[in-house]
Amino acid sequence: MALVMYDLCGIDESLRFSPFCWRAKLAIAHKGLEVEARPWCFTEKEKLEFTDHDKVPVLIDGDEVITDSFEILRYLDRAYPEAPTLLGGPLAESRARFFKHYSERALQLPILRTIVMDLMNAIHPKDRDYFRTTREKRLGMTLEQFHSPAKGLSQLDSALEPLRGQLSGSDFIDGDAPGAADYLVFANFMWARSVSTADLVSNADPVYAWIERMLDANGGVGRNAVRICDIEGAYRA
Amino acid sequence: MALVMYDLCGIDESLRFSPFCWRAKLAIAHKGLEVEARPWCFTEKEKLEFTDHDKVPVLIDGDEVITDSFEILRYLDRAYPEAPTLLGGPLAESRARFFKHYSERALQLPILRTIVMDLMNAIHPKDRDYFRTTREKRLGMTLEQFHSPAKGLSQLDSALEPLRGQLSGSDFIDGDAPGAADYLVFANFMWARSVSTADLVSNADPVYAWIERMLDANGGVGRNAVRICDIEGAYRA
Repeated sequence: MALVMYDLCGIDESLRFSPFCWRAKLAIAHKGLEVEARPWCFTEKEKLEFTDHDKVPVLIDGDEVITDSFEILRYLDRAYPEAPTLLGGPLAESRARFFKHYSERALQLPILRTIVMDLMNAIHPKDRDYFRTTREKRLGMTLEQFHSPAKGLSQLDSALEPLRGQLSGSDFIDGDAPGAADYLVFANFMWARSVSTADLVSNADPVYAWIERMLDANGGVGRNAVRICDIEGAYRA
Repeated sequence: MALVMYDLCGIDESLRFSPFCWRAKLAIAHKGLEVEARPWCFTEKEKLEFTDHDKVPVLIDGDEVITDSFEILRYLDRAYPEAPTLLGGPLAESRARFFKHYSERALQLPILRTIVMDLMNAIHPKDRDYFRTTREKRLGMTLEQFHSPAKGLSQLDSALEPLRGQLSGSDFIDGDAPGAADYLVFANFMWARSVSTADLVSNADPVYAWIERMLDANGGVGRNAVRICDIEGAYRA
């Protein structure tokens, strides 16, 4: 029985951009599993009433319902131990958790600052008020005031320094092959790539080469995902 | 037979501040081993001629000579597998390496910017020209131009965000007990603490509580280390 996952969609049902959902989808691909990723909009809270959570991803595996992207990674290792490891043992898992925080607290804000207006444009029209209201409250300013590709790219450039160091020693954060740490960080770049054509890193950056490798990993699940520029009439640069 | 290590010393032989040496000393303490930490000055390159390296730490264990702090951690796990693990298996080790880069590329520069004049004052007088010349070349400006506690503390505050996230979930980076990731990061705070009385984080910061736990770990090897303010006449605030 295939896994089922509620997955945020945008202006088109095929446009799936949530970085948290991408963590789960990349992890599922790493495990060699299939998933039916059902489209879900921010304002369709009633569709998630069967769980105690109001955000995606939500993973359903038979009788099991798992919420929170990091918990989904842990579940996949527990339920499918014979498939390639994501998090590893307790020590490796504890260190993997740092990459969740590195992604959320060092990388997401500079990326958002860069792509926020593209993101707004990619969101389903019925979700835009919800998105604007919740994000402006969190940011303490309007999206237009927050939007600054110049500042965002400069902050992102600094925040990527430790990653550059890591990639000077191995092809992936987790060594010779991608693992949970790679997916936790790379999901942010899938988010940006889905909704925007902005170049977040220069093509001479070791992070760029890593993104290219990650796009091709696991049968190109990243590379083959729909982007806003694939949807006729949806992209206004 | 006890381990021997060449360890950078400052204005007094008892003042040991190198963050790279602290990584090794904290790791040795974690393993429950004893070490004779021999004082070494930046300009005493001839004392390291028996190795192919001109920087400390250099660890000597019988016939083995190990240079580079991360390699010393790897060596300790290999040579003393029965003692508590530092790095763990390949996946855990790969992730631990990220903390080396996080320390060196995200934390050390803001800390240096904050404490550089204190550091200069703590360095052995015969080493000061060497230190100034090599660091000014690397920084592209004079130490006085680089020195800015206001900028340094602000940059450090941002750079610590992922660590704050991590410490919201566990007492140590590596979980319930400190491990290699903790030592790789904490060594920077031993560096600052040895040469300066500057408060790098506020006492309400979860990073502050973690520093306190780290100071007490392994019999208080961090807490008991000599600080510049312990040396009569050496500290000029």
